[in-house]
Amino acid sequence: MRFPLVDNLLVIGMGLIGGSVLKAAREAGTAGRLLGMDRDLQTVKKALAMGIAHQGGPLPQPMPPGKNLIVLATHLDSFREKVEELLPHLTPETVVTDVGSVKAPIVEELTPILATKGIPFVGSHPIAGTEKSGVENSIKDLFIGARVIITPTTDTPPEALNLLKTFWQALGARVEEMDPQHHDTVFAAVSHLPHAVTYALVKTMGDAERELGDLLRFSGGGFKDFTRIAASNPHMWREIFRLNRNQILSFLRRFNRTLEEMEGLMEKGKWKELEGLLEEARWLRRGLD
Amino acid sequence: MRFPLVDNLLVIGMGLIGGSVLKAAREAGTAGRLLGMDRDLQTVKKALAMGIAHQGGPLPQPMPPGKNLIVLATHLDSFREKVEELLPHLTPETVVTDVGSVKAPIVEELTPILATKGIPFVGSHPIAGTEKSGVENSIKDLFIGARVIITPTTDTPPEALNLLKTFWQALGARVEEMDPQHHDTVFAAVSHLPHAVTYALVKTMGDAERELGDLLRFSGGGFKDFTRIAASNPHMWREIFRLNRNQILSFLRRFNRTLEEMEGLMEKGKWKELEGLLEEARWLRRGLD
Repeated sequence: MRFPLVDNLLVIGMGLIGGSVLKAAREAGTAGRLLGMDRDLQTVKKALAMGIAHQGGPLPQPMPPGKNLIVLATHLDSFREKVEELLPHLTPETVVTDVGSVKAPIVEELTPILATKGIPFVGSHPIAGTEKSGVENSIKDLFIGARVIITPTTDTPPEALNLLKTFWQALGARVEEMDPQHHDTVFAAVSHLPHAVTYALVKTMGDAERELGDLLRFSGGGFKDFTRIAASNPHMWREIFRLNRNQILSFLRRFNRTLEEMEGLMEKGKWKELEGLLEEARWLRRGLD
Repeated sequence: MRFPLVDNLLVIGMGLIGGSVLKAAREAGTAGRLLGMDRDLQTVKKALAMGIAHQGGPLPQPMPPGKNLIVLATHLDSFREKVEELLPHLTPETVVTDVGSVKAPIVEELTPILATKGIPFVGSHPIAGTEKSGVENSIKDLFIGARVIITPTTDTPPEALNLLKTFWQALGARVEEMDPQHHDTVFAAVSHLPHAVTYALVKTMGDAERELGDLLRFSGGGFKDFTRIAASNPHMWREIFRLNRNQILSFLRRFNRTLEEMEGLMEKGKWKELEGLLEEARWLRRGLD
């Protein structure tokens, strides 16, 4: 990039994603200055030592002048509080985004608060990450080739949308626009439901292990791969389940119906029909490779 | 090995596992002669061309003399038929085993049939494989370091048990003995339940895709890893679900209860309790690494 896209990039919450945004932005020269905030002082120290923040600590008061991009990368339940804390100090020419896995309730909550100062909020959801967390696990290439969904509304100013699009593209991402509500339906299906199912599966097996003993050591590599996502951050996932509750419950009901269908076929000994169902699932799964 | 463990190794069904048994046995010099049978002539041709069978085609009549080990590696629903076909041609000093993922019903069905000719049956379950199938995907190192469960009963002659143990160890496996019924409980929990859940999940998402459109292309790498096991062979899995039906249904009921618990917490908005459940699952999952 010939010159920085923004003067200041402020990332609030330097976990795996926040830290990776800073590393990727440093790599791409996307921002004149990198500001990293975290409530945990150890994290701030690490980020400064890693050179991924030029200034750490509490929120800057006032915010430095110029074109500013603010990325909310804390847990979802801190977004509102952070925005309210920031609000009095925000300068014009600021755009606020986030990296949360749920979009509609976030967009609905933050947009009117920021609008009181004429600041646009546009949601982002980078489809990237690992089951690890913490700034020490952040990766400069995390967004290269990754898909980032951004969720403008009809009220989003085109400049803000363009800025955000260019920002993620500069970090190497493939950007796709989606309606916030549609985003939450899609990700309830392809991400939140599988996480809920995996958490339930691992919990079931843990309970069975306690009762029947000596099961889990026989779990093969397949099971370990399969359940890796249950090692994800519980607080983050609790917030996803809370904010996207209705969509997730609706997909869980669909899942329950399929499982009941399978159980019914097994109970009635309808093996041919069961094989048909498995065949269909295999066919669908192969389509993903 | 100084001299072959058996004179003839006859593998019936040269799929991924059967083919790998032959390749591994060739590598280890475990058998004087490798015999590979398959109902599919193309498979037989491939195996002969790969040099993993010295003789292919239909069952040999009579079986060659000497110490013989027969490995049943077809689908589970062909075991009985194959054993009945073999029975008139079996010579003394023969041991029969299998590689099926369910043990108690197999052991109960085959043991008395073979006992009419004084031939012992001892079940084996190699915990190895991929979601691929076919002799062309067989791997000579498949059993190196893999766990193989063998399921003798109180009636199993010690020589037969020792032969089988030594055979799998020669192929590089870590052998463990288990009661057939206990095997089926353990694997209902750690393998059959996760497969049932994954098949149901992929089917649910396929149905949702058809109804709501354009979901699956957003599934990330995590989802692809997670659902890889749904690409396993549907006929093989239908047979596992059939033969281990009661154990699997019992674990599915446990799983349903956990899922209901999670849904209940979500419906009632008990987020702290939900986070506790996720935390517990993470703790259990981390114990597997």
